[in-house]
Amino acid sequence: MINVGIVGGTGYTGIELIRLLLQHPQARIKMLTSRTEAGLKVADMFPSLRGVLDLAFSPLDIDQLKTCDVVFFATPHGVAMKHAQDLVDAGVKVIDLAADFRLQDLAQFEKWYGMGHECPELLQQSAYGLSELNREKIKNASVVGNPGCYPTTVQLGLAPLLKSEQALISFENIIVDAKSGVSGAGRKASMGMIYTENTDNFKAYGVAGHRHHPEIVEALENISGQKGAFDSLTFVPHLVPMIRGMLSTIYVNLTEQGQQTDLQTLFEQFYQNEAFVDVMPAGSQPETRSVRGANYLRIALYQPIPKRLVIVVAQDNLVKGASGQAIQNMNIMFGLEEGLGLQSIGLLP
Amino acid sequence: MINVGIVGGTGYTGIELIRLLLQHPQARIKMLTSRTEAGLKVADMFPSLRGVLDLAFSPLDIDQLKTCDVVFFATPHGVAMKHAQDLVDAGVKVIDLAADFRLQDLAQFEKWYGMGHECPELLQQSAYGLSELNREKIKNASVVGNPGCYPTTVQLGLAPLLKSEQALISFENIIVDAKSGVSGAGRKASMGMIYTENTDNFKAYGVAGHRHHPEIVEALENISGQKGAFDSLTFVPHLVPMIRGMLSTIYVNLTEQGQQTDLQTLFEQFYQNEAFVDVMPAGSQPETRSVRGANYLRIALYQPIPKRLVIVVAQDNLVKGASGQAIQNMNIMFGLEEGLGLQSIGLLP
Amino acid sequence: MINVGIVGGTGYTGIELIRLLLQHPQARIKMLTSRTEAGLKVADMFPSLRGVLDLAFSPLDIDQLKTCDVVFFATPHGVAMKHAQDLVDAGVKVIDLAADFRLQDLAQFEKWYGMGHECPELLQQSAYGLSELNREKIKNASVVGNPGCYPTTVQLGLAPLLKSEQALISFENIIVDAKSGVSGAGRKASMGMIYTENTDNFKAYGVAGHRHHPEIVEALENISGQKGAFDSLTFVPHLVPMIRGMLSTIYVNLTEQGQQTDLQTLFEQFYQNEAFVDVMPAGSQPETRSVRGANYLRIALYQPIPKRLVIVVAQDNLVKGASGQAIQNMNIMFGLEEGLGLQSIGLLP
Amino acid sequence: MINVGIVGGTGYTGIELIRLLLQHPQARIKMLTSRTEAGLKVADMFPSLRGVLDLAFSPLDIDQLKTCDVVFFATPHGVAMKHAQDLVDAGVKVIDLAADFRLQDLAQFEKWYGMGHECPELLQQSAYGLSELNREKIKNASVVGNPGCYPTTVQLGLAPLLKSEQALISFENIIVDAKSGVSGAGRKASMGMIYTENTDNFKAYGVAGHRHHPEIVEALENISGQKGAFDSLTFVPHLVPMIRGMLSTIYVNLTEQGQQTDLQTLFEQFYQNEAFVDVMPAGSQPETRSVRGANYLRIALYQPIPKRLVIVVAQDNLVKGASGQAIQNMNIMFGLEEGLGLQSIGLLP
Repeated sequence: MINVGIVGGTGYTGIELIRLLLQHPQARIKMLTSRTEAGLKVADMFPSLRGVLDLAFSPLDIDQLKTCDVVFFATPHGVAMKHAQDLVDAGVKVIDLAADFRLQDLAQFEKWYGMGHECPELLQQSAYGLSELNREKIKNASVVGNPGCYPTTVQLGLAPLLKSEQALISFENIIVDAKSGVSGAGRKASMGMIYTENTDNFKAYGVAGHRHHPEIVEALENISGQKGAFDSLTFVPHLVPMIRGMLSTIYVNLTEQGQQTDLQTLFEQFYQNEAFVDVMPAGSQPETRSVRGANYLRIALYQPIPKRLVIVVAQDNLVKGASGQAIQNMNIMFGLEEGLGLQSIGLLP
Repeated sequence: MINVGIVGGTGYTGIELIRLLLQHPQARIKMLTSRTEAGLKVADMFPSLRGVLDLAFSPLDIDQLKTCDVVFFATPHGVAMKHAQDLVDAGVKVIDLAADFRLQDLAQFEKWYGMGHECPELLQQSAYGLSELNREKIKNASVVGNPGCYPTTVQLGLAPLLKSEQALISFENIIVDAKSGVSGAGRKASMGMIYTENTDNFKAYGVAGHRHHPEIVEALENISGQKGAFDSLTFVPHLVPMIRGMLSTIYVNLTEQGQQTDLQTLFEQFYQNEAFVDVMPAGSQPETRSVRGANYLRIALYQPIPKRLVIVVAQDNLVKGASGQAIQNMNIMFGLEEGLGLQSIGLLP
Repeated sequence: MINVGIVGGTGYTGIELIRLLLQHPQARIKMLTSRTEAGLKVADMFPSLRGVLDLAFSPLDIDQLKTCDVVFFATPHGVAMKHAQDLVDAGVKVIDLAADFRLQDLAQFEKWYGMGHECPELLQQSAYGLSELNREKIKNASVVGNPGCYPTTVQLGLAPLLKSEQALISFENIIVDAKSGVSGAGRKASMGMIYTENTDNFKAYGVAGHRHHPEIVEALENISGQKGAFDSLTFVPHLVPMIRGMLSTIYVNLTEQGQQTDLQTLFEQFYQNEAFVDVMPAGSQPETRSVRGANYLRIALYQPIPKRLVIVVAQDNLVKGASGQAIQNMNIMFGLEEGLGLQSIGLLP
Repeated sequence: MINVGIVGGTGYTGIELIRLLLQHPQARIKMLTSRTEAGLKVADMFPSLRGVLDLAFSPLDIDQLKTCDVVFFATPHGVAMKHAQDLVDAGVKVIDLAADFRLQDLAQFEKWYGMGHECPELLQQSAYGLSELNREKIKNASVVGNPGCYPTTVQLGLAPLLKSEQALISFENIIVDAKSGVSGAGRKASMGMIYTENTDNFKAYGVAGHRHHPEIVEALENISGQKGAFDSLTFVPHLVPMIRGMLSTIYVNLTEQGQQTDLQTLFEQFYQNEAFVDVMPAGSQPETRSVRGANYLRIALYQPIPKRLVIVVAQDNLVKGASGQAIQNMNIMFGLEEGLGLQSIGLLP
């Protein structure tokens, strides 16, 4: 039984970790910390846990956390990097759901997150937790930086093309038009988050630049092995009036080679052994509700004209886009079956 | 392993049965029938099942269904009563999620459902499947009539008062002001159901009379043993712009005896051994999202003036109000632990 | 042309006043004040006003406000009572959309709003702005206390019964089960208001006591002339996942006299000359979307058993329940046609 | 006073025409026809019209319609072309909100709408009703084909670039990623439209090809004067869980010339005299709710890298995207001030 600590359990990735871990046969939530809510019963904050979890938030105490086997940081950016080394030294594995261990490029981290990195050496040893693409490194890592939600969709949407031995796409005109449910912004009381400002409304946001953009670029460089190749990628996120769900529509131009390739088959073969990546039949229209609460990510391809491929990728931003993938990574790190505890089926309707 | 057949798997109680049974360790979905969709893969209709259920709808064939241990009818009213006797004769247990086995009063059935009953004798032997209140009878029944969603909230909300040895409430002024999410009306293409007619809208409906009214009355008579006592009960359902969830606000007047009783304690003790009924602390405000996708039903009590008790009851209309309770009844009928397969935690947010 | 000042134009009653006044042929918005947003262009806060209103928020300056003909306070409770006397002395009419001039009972005001009243004499001279019931007093008042949204539905729903010369209903068992869209809570950044905590959810709230309860009781006493008669009225508000809209379901017991009265006709005649109160045909089911953005209030009656009447009342909480009624009162105070500027039709769908 | 007839008033463009025309000072709705609902009072179908419109649907009678000055067809495709010539011959102006008079290319019409065109000569004389771009032709036309909702956003979003004397953009890589509220699909009872299948969900649709695609291409050809130039344009529509609203995100590559141009100023100047087109300041994020119920269309520009321009366009699909623009066209055709009756401000919140 894996003893789990969760630092910062009062946000949505926190409650989602709890929900999923409570259904995990090999994990036990040992402690949940919160600076602001120490002493409060978790079920008093999240009424869905009444009768299921009889635990209170405790203050953040690193010595206590060292008694866990793994600690998840479901905190704002900048917290995990303060404590990760201590925990690793004590033999505890660390999975950060914030951005501290996502970007290897320290200058980019500082630019987008407004803080210097406090443990660059640990960062270098850490693994980037895109489970399907980075399994071997995750297996042996002490620290995993769990990917951002948008970057997960873009990487899994483009990986079969980028990993091909042949040059299938042009890197020049990649457009990522991405859409997220409101929970992607977390659980915080700000005017932009309130019900009456988001319902029956749709907008683009972050057009001046979104923190997931450098993560997407660095990750695609790593996947393709082509540094600098994705500088012209355009990424525009939008806000959808729904609680959960994320859908990215990715537009790429195909090379001659790409136009002569059966891309549907390429994708199906690339993911044929993946439990959580579903390449849908040609012409399908993935819906976010098909993965509501589930760890699946669904992909569909269209080719409106020979030279252009449209890749639609859908996931639950809180599951495959955050807490579900974090648990998938935990399973990998502890040598468990990768899908353990992640069998929840999408809640439909 | 229990072999399960589902007749009419294309509606919301059908897909919900599937979702829950797939997570049940002792049940196996053997066949799903649909008149209109025979041959179609279930996952092609419900994309949440892609990669999880590899089964197609088959035509309704009673001989085939006889190879199951239990058959759920997730059909319109009037279907189960045509086939139940055949199945029972073959040793198959039957759980009807429609109304065929809810009302013992045949005249009421005919009046509200517009059809004569086709197996009144079997109806008499059947059990009314309000699990918590009728466990013994369900255990030995071959046929269970699964309760309506509204009646479930009213019965569990009033049972501790009605089962008391003392006369705690007046029967004269019981008001049930009930609210349901849109999935309560099922999965059907009618103008009243479309997105644009229900969103950002609230209304009462069925004020001329709702089919659950006679069920509520008969059930309360049975619980209290007082025939005719609830004829002045008023029940007004309302439609809430949400997918799932049901909340009933029940107003009763207390007798002198009732005013001198600690009703909070009465409720807590009445349900102390029930896994799925949560009596919340005094002053709580149950939210439907706390049970989204879960089999829990939550109750809170207020007493704004000494003589009046307000009982608020929340559930997921598709789970405890339908498919979840049906599986709870299956567990009872087969001597399994009652909560087996029903551990899903509410999806929040 | 009436020169209008609005104090506190950054909330939802503020923006709604602006929207309606911009369509009013006899009113001109002269200034809008905001403590926190002085200097900001109003259209930069509310993008719907781009190209329509070229005005910035100014700081609250009473001398400036004295140049207006009427000042609306769309502020938190306690602001209007600090400035009303000054304005009245300068010949400016005041309409307060908060609670400062709603309750004549000072002890109740202090109890529910947590502050002493600062101008009790002005309060005594003020008129309670339920337009249809209090027209004469409003016409001659310098200060109008605009009613709360819930109290508007209850008063207009019960007035025909209470104003009858005959005793039609019992005062003992009045239940008001009320439901409001989220905008009723105003425009504020609190956790309870955020999108992800309110969507796909339904709950009762304020069950420990709601500030509109004493207002309802005092108003019904005034309408009926029966002090103390409504102490047993129970009022339970609920929160509906929609932006706008309010629906109150009111349950009353009828006297013998009431049971022998044609109540549908009574209501129709009572409101026959009212432009904004719509008594729908018997059996109708008013929907909040039918009044979205409009100043109408719709009423329907049902009598499920002879002794019980159910009154359903629907309005837009921000229009007839707040800013629309405030403008209706302005029209009355200035001797204009009562419906001027209020012809907006409900936005459907 | 213009006498207006509306054929097919039971859909959402029909009710929206009614709502807007009732607020138009120079128009009078003389008759509304419906095949299926003749005899029914319009307000019994659309309760928002109770107390405002006292008219019943009449059967479609062309002789009756000839007594109108203008007839709007708010019907399915294929109806207007059957009756337009008759009406025109009688001196009645015709505005079709369906597709019969949108496409000049008859083969495209037949391919996408599955029917031959019945009055190709009248089609040739008709004007395409994109008000801002085609005013002169509309002024003198007897028949106007009102544009589709998506095409309106794309044309107004690209016109300043295409109308420039200089080649500012490449035509090779135009991506239109468009998003619409559910009302865009009309008012019809189909499974894909129901509340429970669309709420808390997001998806692309029509990826195999959408009828607005050929309209977009033909319109851009006309605006730019470059036949065949837009064959590589990719258009992917998506469905947003909201009632109203449409937002198109348009991605184009800039030429060297384009990169050296101040595009913000170009757009502002192009639309400086347009009442209904709002070019927002650089960096703005248009929201659909800012135009809910209003005839405005808002545009914002971003340039994430020098060679790429992102154009975001927001409108209410039922107003500027349909009925509002139709009335704008009526005003042009009758020599009225173009904005008459269209002053509704967006309903926010």
